[in-house]
Amino acid sequence: MTLSHPGAAPSGDPVARCRRLLAPALREAVSVLHPWGAGMAAFTLGWSDVEGRPHEREGGKGLRPAIAMLSAEAAGGSAEAALPAAVAVELVHAFSLVHDDIIDHDERRRHREALWKAYGVGPALLTGDALLALAVRQLAGLPDAMRYLSDALVALVQGQTSDMAFENRPWHGQNEVTVAEYTEMAAGKTGALLGAAAAAGVVLGGAPHLAERMWGMGRDLGIAFQIADDVLGIWGDPQVTGKPVHGDLRREKKTLPVLAALASGGTAARELAAALAEGAGDEDAARQAARLIEDAGGRAVAEELAERHLGAALSVVDGCLPDAADLRTVLASLVNRLH
Amino acid sequence: MTLSHPGAAPSGDPVARCRRLLAPALREAVSVLHPWGAGMAAFTLGWSDVEGRPHEREGGKGLRPAIAMLSAEAAGGSAEAALPAAVAVELVHAFSLVHDDIIDHDERRRHREALWKAYGVGPALLTGDALLALAVRQLAGLPDAMRYLSDALVALVQGQTSDMAFENRPWHGQNEVTVAEYTEMAAGKTGALLGAAAAAGVVLGGAPHLAERMWGMGRDLGIAFQIADDVLGIWGDPQVTGKPVHGDLRREKKTLPVLAALASGGTAARELAAALAEGAGDEDAARQAARLIEDAGGRAVAEELAERHLGAALSVVDGCLPDAADLRTVLASLVNRLH
Repeated sequence: MTLSHPGAAPSGDPVARCRRLLAPALREAVSVLHPWGAGMAAFTLGWSDVEGRPHEREGGKGLRPAIAMLSAEAAGGSAEAALPAAVAVELVHAFSLVHDDIIDHDERRRHREALWKAYGVGPALLTGDALLALAVRQLAGLPDAMRYLSDALVALVQGQTSDMAFENRPWHGQNEVTVAEYTEMAAGKTGALLGAAAAAGVVLGGAPHLAERMWGMGRDLGIAFQIADDVLGIWGDPQVTGKPVHGDLRREKKTLPVLAALASGGTAARELAAALAEGAGDEDAARQAARLIEDAGGRAVAEELAERHLGAALSVVDGCLPDAADLRTVLASLVNRLH
Repeated sequence: MTLSHPGAAPSGDPVARCRRLLAPALREAVSVLHPWGAGMAAFTLGWSDVEGRPHEREGGKGLRPAIAMLSAEAAGGSAEAALPAAVAVELVHAFSLVHDDIIDHDERRRHREALWKAYGVGPALLTGDALLALAVRQLAGLPDAMRYLSDALVALVQGQTSDMAFENRPWHGQNEVTVAEYTEMAAGKTGALLGAAAAAGVVLGGAPHLAERMWGMGRDLGIAFQIADDVLGIWGDPQVTGKPVHGDLRREKKTLPVLAALASGGTAARELAAALAEGAGDEDAARQAARLIEDAGGRAVAEELAERHLGAALSVVDGCLPDAADLRTVLASLVNRLH
């Protein structure tokens, strides 16, 4: 408890410290579920294997709950005060991954089977719903935080819908997806929940007047984070990311590096457009596309854009919360995975 | 507006009156969605066909919103005061139907294609999530009503999980599903949202001290409603119910009439157990099973149990809200579909 007291100087990895605070509260929230549902929730949260045996956690890092708790601390409150928001955003994140994997037919998640692959689509869908219901319950009695969570839920689903609608649009020509449209999609799909974590964090930390700016900060952070994810999806090590190599390329997802490469207009861009027009290919075709994206400058533009949006987010934090060193470190780490 | 003023004597069909109040608020709530998502929501709410053309509504009757609004009126407030709760419970109901149809592979809903059948599993799943997110947003700033909605969401998912878990349990023997377990499942799956409608209704109508009793009333009402649904699922006219004939029987769902018939212990019960042990059969087998359930007294027990739980619900209403004639009519109509 003393570690997170506002007066104390926290040491060590701030995310790990927040994760230790989060763990018992998250387990308590999930414990009310039907035993079968609780088992599926435990699997998807990384607490047990498919047989229900406890194992070393390989779940998420808990970045969103850390943002909520560190925002509360930076606002002058305690990390504990933000626990309901921390639990809520982690549950919403877990819900969105479970449903995303069903929607995208992704069979792997975090080096294990996706929940639907392990238990079936129906049970997984219902487990996602259960995680969302538990998240909402966490903040039901705290309207000033709940408003941000509910706005984030709407924006998250809107962003996912846009992302899905992009798949039916052409790579090039009249109805092509623009970088501006991508940015709006990422701000919703990825930014809204980060913004809700930060906004609810400062609300519960005692500085509700900062909430709107932190909510806006989350949009920029989310755009930067999503672009970083796109870059890792093309050039990242599958051993590290836990995702199939070139998965986004083979699924013809409208990611920023590809959109930026196509927009660059050079020889590599034309070759890329021709290659993409031929449709989903094999691993060789994906490797070739990755090279063309890089040649056309798509990777450089993506990395620069991610840095720019991260910079905008950090400048909001610096303006609102000048002593938020731990929070700053965590936010930067979301994008610095690229280096 | 005058029709729903607390002092006025409302005339005509109270559900139709509430539906007229609900319609613009519900459309406004859904209007913020991505155009593609809004189109799917309009289809599932019965406002348009699969091509997006407006058509005569064949959506739900709006019983849950009517319960919220009539509870608010009976508590001394206006129906308009309960609109946020009315919109929220209708959206949660729509969400649950969309996800249920995916889970159960039901291809038809309300005499039309189910949403997943018309648009695909991924888009339908996401539309369900969007409806839920919009529901939560309706009550985000009203914590005393939001608490009931969020408790209802958790209970609803728990009930659905129990119902799904029942499918993997035997009809007869050591691990058989009991009537008590069924009752608990129905109280969650069907009762919680009815209870939230009534409880949030009296909260927003100005009588929060009645909310806990109205929440409890919803449990009994839900059990009665679910049993009535089970009876209609076996003996109802598919032209009226919009569901496939004997669907529950062919899917071997653990419905109350079957559980009661098996528990009766006579010759027909033994014949029924033997028939069920042979697994899902054709239409002839289902018709034969329906006859055995009736011979074993399953239908009579179910109808009696539904009446008893409805009576318990109405006696709570009479105790809390002695002048709630319209509300009483609506609640009774939920179960009187049997006659």
